[in-house]
Amino acid sequence: MGRTAVGFHEGMPVATLIASGSWLMSFLDRICAVNRYDWSGFRAFRVAGVQVGFVKHAFAEILARWPAVFHVEATQVSLADVLGSPQARSAAVREALLSLRDEGLIKGWRDELYPVNRRYAEVPYLLMERAAIPLFGVCAYGVHLNGFVRDKDGLQMWIGRRSLTKFSAPGKLDQLVAGGQPAGLGLKANMVKECWEEAGIAPELAQRALPVGAISYCRETSQGLRPDVIFNFDLELPPDFIPVSMDGEMEEFYLWPIEKVIETVRETDAFKLNCALVVIDFLVRRGFIAPEQPDYMEILHGLLARETALAEYARRRDPG
Amino acid sequence: MGRTAVGFHEGMPVATLIASGSWLMSFLDRICAVNRYDWSGFRAFRVAGVQVGFVKHAFAEILARWPAVFHVEATQVSLADVLGSPQARSAAVREALLSLRDEGLIKGWRDELYPVNRRYAEVPYLLMERAAIPLFGVCAYGVHLNGFVRDKDGLQMWIGRRSLTKFSAPGKLDQLVAGGQPAGLGLKANMVKECWEEAGIAPELAQRALPVGAISYCRETSQGLRPDVIFNFDLELPPDFIPVSMDGEMEEFYLWPIEKVIETVRETDAFKLNCALVVIDFLVRRGFIAPEQPDYMEILHGLLARETALAEYARRRDPG
Repeated sequence: MGRTAVGFHEGMPVATLIASGSWLMSFLDRICAVNRYDWSGFRAFRVAGVQVGFVKHAFAEILARWPAVFHVEATQVSLADVLGSPQARSAAVREALLSLRDEGLIKGWRDELYPVNRRYAEVPYLLMERAAIPLFGVCAYGVHLNGFVRDKDGLQMWIGRRSLTKFSAPGKLDQLVAGGQPAGLGLKANMVKECWEEAGIAPELAQRALPVGAISYCRETSQGLRPDVIFNFDLELPPDFIPVSMDGEMEEFYLWPIEKVIETVRETDAFKLNCALVVIDFLVRRGFIAPEQPDYMEILHGLLARETALAEYARRRDPG
Repeated sequence: MGRTAVGFHEGMPVATLIASGSWLMSFLDRICAVNRYDWSGFRAFRVAGVQVGFVKHAFAEILARWPAVFHVEATQVSLADVLGSPQARSAAVREALLSLRDEGLIKGWRDELYPVNRRYAEVPYLLMERAAIPLFGVCAYGVHLNGFVRDKDGLQMWIGRRSLTKFSAPGKLDQLVAGGQPAGLGLKANMVKECWEEAGIAPELAQRALPVGAISYCRETSQGLRPDVIFNFDLELPPDFIPVSMDGEMEEFYLWPIEKVIETVRETDAFKLNCALVVIDFLVRRGFIAPEQPDYMEILHGLLARETALAEYARRRDPG
């Protein structure tokens, strides 16, 4: 059961090929690296009769300490039905999470509320502290920006190096701008805000960022599950634009010829795991990864591996 | 088993929602329309120990008339192992297909050879007459072009109306240029050739067409299965460009504001089934379908439904 599900190549799970070394150092390797999970380690997390996440068995047993909030059963954890509104649910869960934080069981507390739902456009069932989202295996949304420059020499992309003091993936390469999507702020508004904070991009310029698709993945971590969605934006920048990190989250910025970006994504793990996928999506849409690429369709489909994983999960539960 | 597999929404197969009318007249409806199949109606088609397609049971029984070519068993049809080269396989299969054509069992003979393989970049196991490809459930590849014009009023797209004498989908709306991918011609070379034949686009201009991704689907027809892949290209055309159908395959061309294209794809079935998906992919990549769309992720994933279907099929055969 402990399989890495992304796709199949010649009837073999892609993970098997990766293990055999035959596709090491490839775009698909980047996709596989961020899609590792084992459903058997999780039980469903349900709110109002609807599954909105996945909880590790050990964490489920901890949640059993709040029987008025969490109904813990062998196959699922449900929020108490008596919590009948988003407000009531959010408050009750927050209280339990604060205790867990004080016990050191939730690290990296952000004081930032994320929506708990199954799709971005859905009214949230509750709001939950960002740091707890992976513990409940709830989808986190993010917005990432491909910032690029075009001139007679071709296309260049702005790349950020994450601050060494970041909680997650310190020192790794990142998009020019990237941020989590908190509750109560539109995607574009969040992108414009992040553009200023992370790279000093003025709102008038940031407004031109265009939504161009999404990538998704499903990754088991020591904490829980991250079945996340990143909404991708493209923004062409003027040649004289120079990014400035206003919030100190980026250590440095580089303007790289696209060939160097391609090589770095394909042949190294220098990019933060999910940021590599955002670059790969850009390379497909701009023709830098061409359809003659042997694993072209696996790459495209692998960029939406969360959707495939959730469909597979639904089919296991209900093998109609 | 007779389900339409595209994805799940709130735990319900999308097809159920469609049937309930709650998503009729939507982008997702266009995706569902081209993804209908029932695995139970097919057996595997194998060459050299590898599955390359799907054959309807009734057609398998017909193929049993050529025991030196097709080994017909209850769960699969295999090409005889003695046919050890692409040349030998292609010749033996061609002979059988010619008989079937003469009996009227293969309609629309094209005298055009398609590759039989599992991915575009793979060396074909054999070449097969285009008209027979769906009977063997082999992936057919195509190249479609989004031809568009940008000016101060926004984006306009060139749309073709297929000739009323076409064998498939007469009178339906189509991309400016679209064609099947024969064996022995590169994708870009095929696109350039089709650009001239279908719309009178000069090679110098057609060369600028950029590969931007792909869509795939899996559709059962009265003949067999079409688990097809279309490679999408974008080409920005000068405002004074006027298409001319050189081969008579297009009845008319229209230059439509993108809003009219959006409305037509979303609310009608005027487009040829697979062409609607190529438009939807364009709309996603250009921000006209935005991530706030309620079924955004289902749309993205649904545009690669063949990949999901084949992964599901592989899992059924080998439920690891």
